[in-house]
Amino acid sequence: MTTLKTASGIALRGKRDDPMFKDERPGWKGYIEWEAYPEKRKLAEEILATYEFDAPPEFQLCPLPDTNPILEGVRWKQYHDALGSNLRNIPDISWEYVKKEKAADMIHVLQFPYNGEPPRGRLVDTEITRNEDHFVRNHGGIPEIDAEAYTLDIEGLVNDPKRLTLADLQNEELFPRQSNVVSLQCSGTRRIEQIHEYPGDGDELINAPWGEGAIGTSRWTGVSLKKVIKYCGGLKDGGEGIHLEMFGADTYFKKGKVYNYVVSVPWRKVKLNEVLLAWEMNGKPLPRIHGYPLRTVVFGYIGARSCKWLYKIKAIRGPSLAPVQMKEYLYYTPQVGKQNALYSNGFSIQDMPVSSAIMEPVSFQQIIHDGSIRLKGWAYSGGGHWPIRVEVSSDGGSVWYEVPHENMSTKYFYAWRTWFMDLPVDAEGWLEFCVRTWDNALNTQPTYVRSAWNWDLHVTSSCHRIKIYSINRSKPLTAKRLKMLEEKNTPIIPITHPMEFDLETQEEYDKEMEKRGGRDPLE
Amino acid sequence: MTTLKTASGIALRGKRDDPMFKDERPGWKGYIEWEAYPEKRKLAEEILATYEFDAPPEFQLCPLPDTNPILEGVRWKQYHDALGSNLRNIPDISWEYVKKEKAADMIHVLQFPYNGEPPRGRLVDTEITRNEDHFVRNHGGIPEIDAEAYTLDIEGLVNDPKRLTLADLQNEELFPRQSNVVSLQCSGTRRIEQIHEYPGDGDELINAPWGEGAIGTSRWTGVSLKKVIKYCGGLKDGGEGIHLEMFGADTYFKKGKVYNYVVSVPWRKVKLNEVLLAWEMNGKPLPRIHGYPLRTVVFGYIGARSCKWLYKIKAIRGPSLAPVQMKEYLYYTPQVGKQNALYSNGFSIQDMPVSSAIMEPVSFQQIIHDGSIRLKGWAYSGGGHWPIRVEVSSDGGSVWYEVPHENMSTKYFYAWRTWFMDLPVDAEGWLEFCVRTWDNALNTQPTYVRSAWNWDLHVTSSCHRIKIYSINRSKPLTAKRLKMLEEKNTPIIPITHPMEFDLETQEEYDKEMEKRGGRDPLE
Repeated sequence: MTTLKTASGIALRGKRDDPMFKDERPGWKGYIEWEAYPEKRKLAEEILATYEFDAPPEFQLCPLPDTNPILEGVRWKQYHDALGSNLRNIPDISWEYVKKEKAADMIHVLQFPYNGEPPRGRLVDTEITRNEDHFVRNHGGIPEIDAEAYTLDIEGLVNDPKRLTLADLQNEELFPRQSNVVSLQCSGTRRIEQIHEYPGDGDELINAPWGEGAIGTSRWTGVSLKKVIKYCGGLKDGGEGIHLEMFGADTYFKKGKVYNYVVSVPWRKVKLNEVLLAWEMNGKPLPRIHGYPLRTVVFGYIGARSCKWLYKIKAIRGPSLAPVQMKEYLYYTPQVGKQNALYSNGFSIQDMPVSSAIMEPVSFQQIIHDGSIRLKGWAYSGGGHWPIRVEVSSDGGSVWYEVPHENMSTKYFYAWRTWFMDLPVDAEGWLEFCVRTWDNALNTQPTYVRSAWNWDLHVTSSCHRIKIYSINRSKPLTAKRLKMLEEKNTPIIPITHPMEFDLETQEEYDKEMEKRGGRDPLE
Repeated sequence: MTTLKTASGIALRGKRDDPMFKDERPGWKGYIEWEAYPEKRKLAEEILATYEFDAPPEFQLCPLPDTNPILEGVRWKQYHDALGSNLRNIPDISWEYVKKEKAADMIHVLQFPYNGEPPRGRLVDTEITRNEDHFVRNHGGIPEIDAEAYTLDIEGLVNDPKRLTLADLQNEELFPRQSNVVSLQCSGTRRIEQIHEYPGDGDELINAPWGEGAIGTSRWTGVSLKKVIKYCGGLKDGGEGIHLEMFGADTYFKKGKVYNYVVSVPWRKVKLNEVLLAWEMNGKPLPRIHGYPLRTVVFGYIGARSCKWLYKIKAIRGPSLAPVQMKEYLYYTPQVGKQNALYSNGFSIQDMPVSSAIMEPVSFQQIIHDGSIRLKGWAYSGGGHWPIRVEVSSDGGSVWYEVPHENMSTKYFYAWRTWFMDLPVDAEGWLEFCVRTWDNALNTQPTYVRSAWNWDLHVTSSCHRIKIYSINRSKPLTAKRLKMLEEKNTPIIPITHPMEFDLETQEEYDKEMEKRGGRDPLE
């Protein structure tokens, strides 16, 4: 657990059982306003500096724990604990919402702040993701905000700053309702492939080892931020060079300092009606874990911009300088790492590129088949593009097969397409299956993980590759072996389990050896 | 532990505390003769059939244990235990010899039968391997044979079968002495790379997860088998098509049956004086663990043919049909596996191909340097060839540098060459270093592990590749970061440990952003 680092900490420690930092407003439990109070942030920083926190676990240079949750988030729990009784229970409260609102079989990548993805196969069974299966990538605890107490402040470089209630936003006389099918994707999707290729940044908010499930698709309903800005009299100077900074009620930590979750999107994006303030997810109120009562949904962007528990929007010049926007979600060239990374020498990830994944079968599966294997998966492109063609290969990417259009789900401007394919497979033994997608701008995916590895391990968009052991029953020798094993009631899988039986009799061997001219040359 | 499988086993089990199978001869402890007594082998087989033995551990489809020994060999200990009190202690006795005869810091890949390799870097510090560092790949327990009681039988298709004592063999009036520097290599060397690429055969004698150290070089002294055969009047029919079957005193198990360790080499090989009956290893008597008092050393062949604790040589037509020769050490095409492998459709590994390894640095090392990194390693080619050129690359094999001849050890006809090289490295971040060797017949190595993966996971001779994180102090940004960390007394390694400090100040960031024209385009 946490230990005190300095003697001066003792006085502060005495307060640990007090609610040192109180909730900001009635009806907003777990929301501490940091951004508006520099003196509060300074005190929190001083308190944190008196502690020695546990080091984050090493999980990149050694095998991942085979547990669920995979990672716990001890350090972040300790940060909350150190700041007094009002923050102490946030991790527990948040975990209760995981259990209540998410599917029981979620893969808990990180317990706190909660990061979780659904089991692989189920995710692509439907083009719209069930709410309980939708991935969650939170950066802090879950605030509990009453809809009746909820307000949204619009301020900064708007001509007519306003405070709006949820009822205002839902008033169709003030704002036309907008509803879109939109995929959200964490830039960490498939990060595990980058970690296994080369370890990267050991950020204190752990770079979670995501699989292929940190993507989901919902019908989101709410109002376009553009309409809300118009309602506030529009932006100063017609919006030229202006970004909209969005404030989330969750608490965020970065290098010993405390913040609310703050990110921004450019007015150019908002103007396209591609930034939605949403209160409904697939026709239901937002789950708490997904941002109830109101969140942003930014179409085609990295999920991190879709701010949850939104309480304020501020129009500013240029992108936000808050840490999540300025110091996180940067994409570095491969020669950049701990020795030379700056905030300025990585570019800021906004639009998401074309990518895809095979969700079934899964890597290392050993499959008995008759000449074809069914694959299913997803394909996505952000930034206003959509997946136009999916191709799969059974030989690591030499020969590609196009997924027939009738095996692909609906085209949406802002969403993925799920797909399936019966891939012809003649060869036996270990094969590398892979998938690549082309979007409507003819972008396709980098070839290998190595092709686009980057220090912060973001955006693993290279061709997704899995290892499959093919056992082709249509081959006579294989059919014979399978029959023999069946008669002996012995499964062939896993292939690494030794076979108790001789592979051939001495007579068969001698006969075959004679045909082959023996082991040695004739002369 | 073992459990009884059948009721009929109970009578046999009663005997477990008796020495059911006695030592063959006085002065030969732990040597049970199986090959000459079919009825003894049948009884042992019946006894083994009454037991249910523990399944071998699954270690290929999941991470390897981080222990030393890495694997224990429980099942093989149980086989010995099941056969009565005379075999029961063999695993313990063998382990005592490991502790006595091998370096304290050996990597114990498998405890019983003992498989072990030395720590990477030390192995290539000398061109001759210290006896205590030489890898060991045993297939059974270690027999304890008195030199005075020792005899070697020469029989089968020789004109004048004989029994020779060690004194006879060492009598220089009968046999000229022969001494050669010879590398022995296990065909499992670098198997871990194949396992990590694709799991393979889960043989009951575990396919040990060897690193790069299952190779060693000694000066071996003894007599040429050719001279011994001549002393026995030569072979029938002038030796045409004849192989020499060699019997080791250790006990070997295969699919529920019991054997001595038996392998063969062709007379063609013996005729070249490339098969030595050796009693000395680097001027000292053979260690027990390496075959005392007499073993075979077959130059350029897979180590498995260099039979230890040799007690009999039999001239036969064609290769041995004993399991180690006929059923093991087969090299399959990649589409062959559990579903279709036969003894006849893999070829028998005898000559070893050209191969090499980087022994320092080791994979995943993070290295601070000034523009060059020192590599050291080994290079070898079997089958009568020798390494003529070693090349290394810092970019995965696009640009190759030749290791200067003055950095390579002595050329021998039958041994490896150790080498070192200061490799120019400009790039930073994760790099793939690799090595390949050319032999005097212009053979070189397959490019990737995938290029030559095979079901039994033998002969990993592809270019050896390691992942290195390069931190080049001659780069200004890196020098600045290293200086900052030094001032704060914080190591940069491991790179996955989060850095507590901001990467740049707000002022530096703003200045740099202005130079770059901000995050967004101008218009």
